[in-house]
Amino acid sequence: MTTRLLLFHSALLLMGLTAGWSQPSPFRPAASNLPGVDYPAIAPDGRVIVRLKAPAATSVQLQGGDGLLKEPLNLVKDAEGSWNGTIASAGLGFHYYWFTVDGVRVNDPGSDAYFGYGRPTSGIEMPTPGEDFHLLKQVPHGDVRERWYYSNITDSWRRAFVYTPPGYDASPKKRYPILYLLHGAGENERGWSLQGHMSAILDNLIADKRAVPMIVVMDNGYATAKGESTTAAAGLSDMEKRAATLEQVYIKEIIPTMEANYRTLRGRENRAMAGLSMGGLQTMLIGMKHTDLFSYYGFFSGAIRNTVLTDPKTAFNGVFANASAFNKQVKLLWFGAGSEEKPFVSMMTDTRRKLSDAGITSLGYESPGTYHEWHTWRRCLHEFAPLLFK
Amino acid sequence: MTTRLLLFHSALLLMGLTAGWSQPSPFRPAASNLPGVDYPAIAPDGRVIVRLKAPAATSVQLQGGDGLLKEPLNLVKDAEGSWNGTIASAGLGFHYYWFTVDGVRVNDPGSDAYFGYGRPTSGIEMPTPGEDFHLLKQVPHGDVRERWYYSNITDSWRRAFVYTPPGYDASPKKRYPILYLLHGAGENERGWSLQGHMSAILDNLIADKRAVPMIVVMDNGYATAKGESTTAAAGLSDMEKRAATLEQVYIKEIIPTMEANYRTLRGRENRAMAGLSMGGLQTMLIGMKHTDLFSYYGFFSGAIRNTVLTDPKTAFNGVFANASAFNKQVKLLWFGAGSEEKPFVSMMTDTRRKLSDAGITSLGYESPGTYHEWHTWRRCLHEFAPLLFK
Repeated sequence: MTTRLLLFHSALLLMGLTAGWSQPSPFRPAASNLPGVDYPAIAPDGRVIVRLKAPAATSVQLQGGDGLLKEPLNLVKDAEGSWNGTIASAGLGFHYYWFTVDGVRVNDPGSDAYFGYGRPTSGIEMPTPGEDFHLLKQVPHGDVRERWYYSNITDSWRRAFVYTPPGYDASPKKRYPILYLLHGAGENERGWSLQGHMSAILDNLIADKRAVPMIVVMDNGYATAKGESTTAAAGLSDMEKRAATLEQVYIKEIIPTMEANYRTLRGRENRAMAGLSMGGLQTMLIGMKHTDLFSYYGFFSGAIRNTVLTDPKTAFNGVFANASAFNKQVKLLWFGAGSEEKPFVSMMTDTRRKLSDAGITSLGYESPGTYHEWHTWRRCLHEFAPLLFK
Repeated sequence: MTTRLLLFHSALLLMGLTAGWSQPSPFRPAASNLPGVDYPAIAPDGRVIVRLKAPAATSVQLQGGDGLLKEPLNLVKDAEGSWNGTIASAGLGFHYYWFTVDGVRVNDPGSDAYFGYGRPTSGIEMPTPGEDFHLLKQVPHGDVRERWYYSNITDSWRRAFVYTPPGYDASPKKRYPILYLLHGAGENERGWSLQGHMSAILDNLIADKRAVPMIVVMDNGYATAKGESTTAAAGLSDMEKRAATLEQVYIKEIIPTMEANYRTLRGRENRAMAGLSMGGLQTMLIGMKHTDLFSYYGFFSGAIRNTVLTDPKTAFNGVFANASAFNKQVKLLWFGAGSEEKPFVSMMTDTRRKLSDAGITSLGYESPGTYHEWHTWRRCLHEFAPLLFK
């Protein structure tokens, strides 16, 4: 071997060793990033690097939904004009987030937009190690269908997304039970199928024969009657007042539209209603007035305040007054919340205790380690759906 | 009548007259605004007022897609910290737009997000007086279905939106012809059903018996094979190279998936392909190699450059070499463009002349007064769809 070749081999060896010694970065692009986008990047320990190019800005902060970070994170500008920051430890699941550039809320160009906070908002998906119940798998898939219908009550075109389960087209005489699934405040009818992964969750449960095939309707949780002022991102207390309009839309428009257009089984034993946060409150406000229409109810992080059930014996026209009759008629009152969203755990506990004191049976579920965010609600759906229509 | 009452009546009269004399504002919130949002506001003469709250910003501009405004508009800050500006005359139809706040691109919080320019982007709908072919009406509606499928070629889950026409569910033995409809550069598979109003256009045409009921598939126009680098917002010249991967995805994955999951009529006489801009180029690059699979083609503002048809006699393995055979086999080569998007009118004219010189028959359509934007493509679909499958 010549000296030249020997040197060449030594150099190769050295390069190899150097590569072996260097620490490869533990950060990988978030699964939710648009194709080819490097940031946000996530490390296995929950650290998240965010980056935004803004050479002319004088201040950039990062903010986000419950569980992403405890307080706004000030980003620091690098030599290339990008602002960088690292979240020390983000909670698992889906989190809305945004930048604040010189006081203006700015979405991340590397993220898809999810409707939250009354507007399209960026979102990051944190890994959920050991959990894949909500991910697309090689199983038969249902369709999520966009369905427009005219609402006389609101004098507007409304849009629902309707999940029809695997086999729906192939069995044209079969009829299915139906779950009405409501989103949260500031969100819209896209939430459950987009950030909620609703169709993957049901596809997987149905493939495993854990849930019966069902139709799922995801409509908009805001309804303003003709002449009312529009308040698309109205708060919860306003929502309590407004539930009356939404109730009419459900009873007179949504349910009849769905039953006319899809092969639904009729009768209260084939109808369920569930919702998250504001949608949990609406499920209580609308559903408890219509136990003639629904048999199964789900309250996912339900925003059910003390005032709703001040006196369970008289609430909702006295539906709970005869507990044994109620328990016989209503198949399921199911409550869930994330362990880290304390106010919602409290609301769940308070509501269930009040119901229990009145003799009303319910089930409760606490999602370990999750916040007021979509992974809590995915888990709720995953626990709740197998209990329906059996 | 007492003096007091007289004065009261005079005051009422004066108020009435004053109200009559004052000029009511001609500006109305854009139809595309989120519920309850006042800006952008549009006057009948095409003026548009935009507004963004950004008290701490030092500069705010408005920019947008073809036809909205000729050059960036500098906004002016008012006493409340909102930045305001007026577009002198915006073209009709749908326009992407965004603010630039201290150099950073910012979406309008009052707009939904539409995928364009490789990211979620705001959009404004300018009125189209006298035209309603693209608006929701009280006619039977088809569904637009979200369909996920695993792609081995790209090693990823891909999503298609699939329009099934009115009557699809009610006639479970009926089979339908199928149109593959492609979006433009920087857009995605949501474009045609969201900003393209595809389902309303087809619903209306089918209700008027002007188009036959058909299935429409809207898939993603980007496909990166395993091992290729991802370039989600790749330019057109890159797209010419990459059409080979998309071609394989169409032939081996998209078409078989759709024919397995939906009641399609088989055979080339029941398949059409059309696309806008980059999608028009792809329709040419993929479609002309597969006249065994498709009979009808639409090129909407097709980005078909001179190089594509340098020599029509040898292009695409000589498909045009025998003109009479081609004209007999291919039922329709349809070109359209907006009168105000001159380069695309030129490409249409050049391509049609080259084809004509080679003896190939085609149809051309110029959309009056529209730009490189979705209203041009809505009109193209509205003109093109009635010619299919007859």
